[in-house]
Amino acid sequence: MLLGSIEAGGTKFVCAVGNEDYRVIEKVSIPTTDPRTTFTKVINFFKQFEDLVALSIASFGPIEIQKNNALYGYITETPKKGWSQTNFVGPIKEALNIPVFFTTDVNGSAYGEYVLAQLFNEKIRSLVYLTIGTGVGGGAVIDGKIVGSQGHTEMGHVRVKRHPDDLTFEGICPFHQDCLEGLASGPTFDARLGIKGKDVPLNHPVWDILSYYVAQAAIQQTMILRPDNIVFGGGVVSEAFLEKVRRNFTELNNKYIKVPDLNTYIRMPRVKDNGSATLGNFALAFKELEK
Amino acid sequence: MLLGSIEAGGTKFVCAVGNEDYRVIEKVSIPTTDPRTTFTKVINFFKQFEDLVALSIASFGPIEIQKNNALYGYITETPKKGWSQTNFVGPIKEALNIPVFFTTDVNGSAYGEYVLAQLFNEKIRSLVYLTIGTGVGGGAVIDGKIVGSQGHTEMGHVRVKRHPDDLTFEGICPFHQDCLEGLASGPTFDARLGIKGKDVPLNHPVWDILSYYVAQAAIQQTMILRPDNIVFGGGVVSEAFLEKVRRNFTELNNKYIKVPDLNTYIRMPRVKDNGSATLGNFALAFKELEK
Repeated sequence: MLLGSIEAGGTKFVCAVGNEDYRVIEKVSIPTTDPRTTFTKVINFFKQFEDLVALSIASFGPIEIQKNNALYGYITETPKKGWSQTNFVGPIKEALNIPVFFTTDVNGSAYGEYVLAQLFNEKIRSLVYLTIGTGVGGGAVIDGKIVGSQGHTEMGHVRVKRHPDDLTFEGICPFHQDCLEGLASGPTFDARLGIKGKDVPLNHPVWDILSYYVAQAAIQQTMILRPDNIVFGGGVVSEAFLEKVRRNFTELNNKYIKVPDLNTYIRMPRVKDNGSATLGNFALAFKELEK
Repeated sequence: MLLGSIEAGGTKFVCAVGNEDYRVIEKVSIPTTDPRTTFTKVINFFKQFEDLVALSIASFGPIEIQKNNALYGYITETPKKGWSQTNFVGPIKEALNIPVFFTTDVNGSAYGEYVLAQLFNEKIRSLVYLTIGTGVGGGAVIDGKIVGSQGHTEMGHVRVKRHPDDLTFEGICPFHQDCLEGLASGPTFDARLGIKGKDVPLNHPVWDILSYYVAQAAIQQTMILRPDNIVFGGGVVSEAFLEKVRRNFTELNNKYIKVPDLNTYIRMPRVKDNGSATLGNFALAFKELEK
């Protein structure tokens, strides 16, 4: 029995096949060009595996995941050129004729981290995964279920209290200007300083500003969900950055709500090399098969 | 078969007994004095009913609801004089010797509204209940389960973006100053204007400020949970106020995320006279019995 994973991103589609222990057997990276070309390559990859029994897709968004919606399985209005209103699940399912699960990239990652914690026999019941990268997004899993009844979550598009040293920056979200994504995503380094985040030394005050916003996101998740873990991924995140986030979290919380040891509560992904979504996909594919 | 409900508030304990259709058979209001006196009266009320098979408590907080915690069933550090570190479940369970469920007042209300929606055959899978009153709090129910693995939620203690006409008001939360509760709870009328909220005409600009903050809370819940319904209760809330909240929500969302018709999505409690928690308690007591 083999399980399939598609991590669909704006620059590449990572396709992988794994066994029942969720171990990767084979993996390829396919550049994201137009949907037709990309899907053909994806399908050809998976067609090599006769034992493939189910597949899960963790896709960039926004996507339609409500099964009762006519556009179920589509990427909807995305800024990614050529990809708006693209039926994703349809052609994959038709070509491979196996059960297909469809969710967002961040939900896939959240599920992967949740599953890994279970495999490590940690007693966690819920987990939030937030990515701080080109955009800001997140997904939550409670008792093995992905959160979101009306569609997938959009955890980056919440408002935050402005940092006192960041009152003039307008923010870069085309919808909301200074929502969390508009203030704390990777491209805000460029917008504020004219240089890429990777070139900004960690002692630059802008890191304090970003970590203040990301800590507010952690506070929001804590107050609204009381999850067992908050995992941070994405290009902006490093252990040194999370140390700043934890410090800001402690100040913002001001001993109000009891949280676990912050070093385990607010943490980096346990799956290395951005592999959380692949693992999540294997588990979600297996769950889809069991249905 | 009879089910019991205790709605424990800072000024009164509303105790009720209901039948298997969750209909109230008898109800009393007991003033909140010291724990011993109050509990004695509560126990004497319930002892009248031989057919009482289970009971649920929806209490003011903070409370300990983690069963593996030594303080499970306690009201913990509350500002309410004489009630800190009070064992609530213990004496009730000992005196009545029936299954007792223990949760927060807002979780009880959330559960009541969720159950009523099910009874009305609405296809909702999740619901958030936010109360804007003396304090700000909230609870969420997803697929019949109350949200919160690390304890109960504290939805009022999130930060919000400040309203441009409200930059000088410091906020009144003793822990966080200008968190949602510190900016939008009932006592902020007094703190801002020197008069009670009920005496402030609805065309006063302060209502726009409060509704801006409450709309941000609705945005946070939407982006983080994608619930089917957000119900608002508490003394500050009226249909006219929610109309302002909906307008602010629409502006803040800026057509980003698809939500149901706002008149049903953001709404007043369906159970009248603050009865949501009583209904929720009956249902939670029944669930506890089934365990």
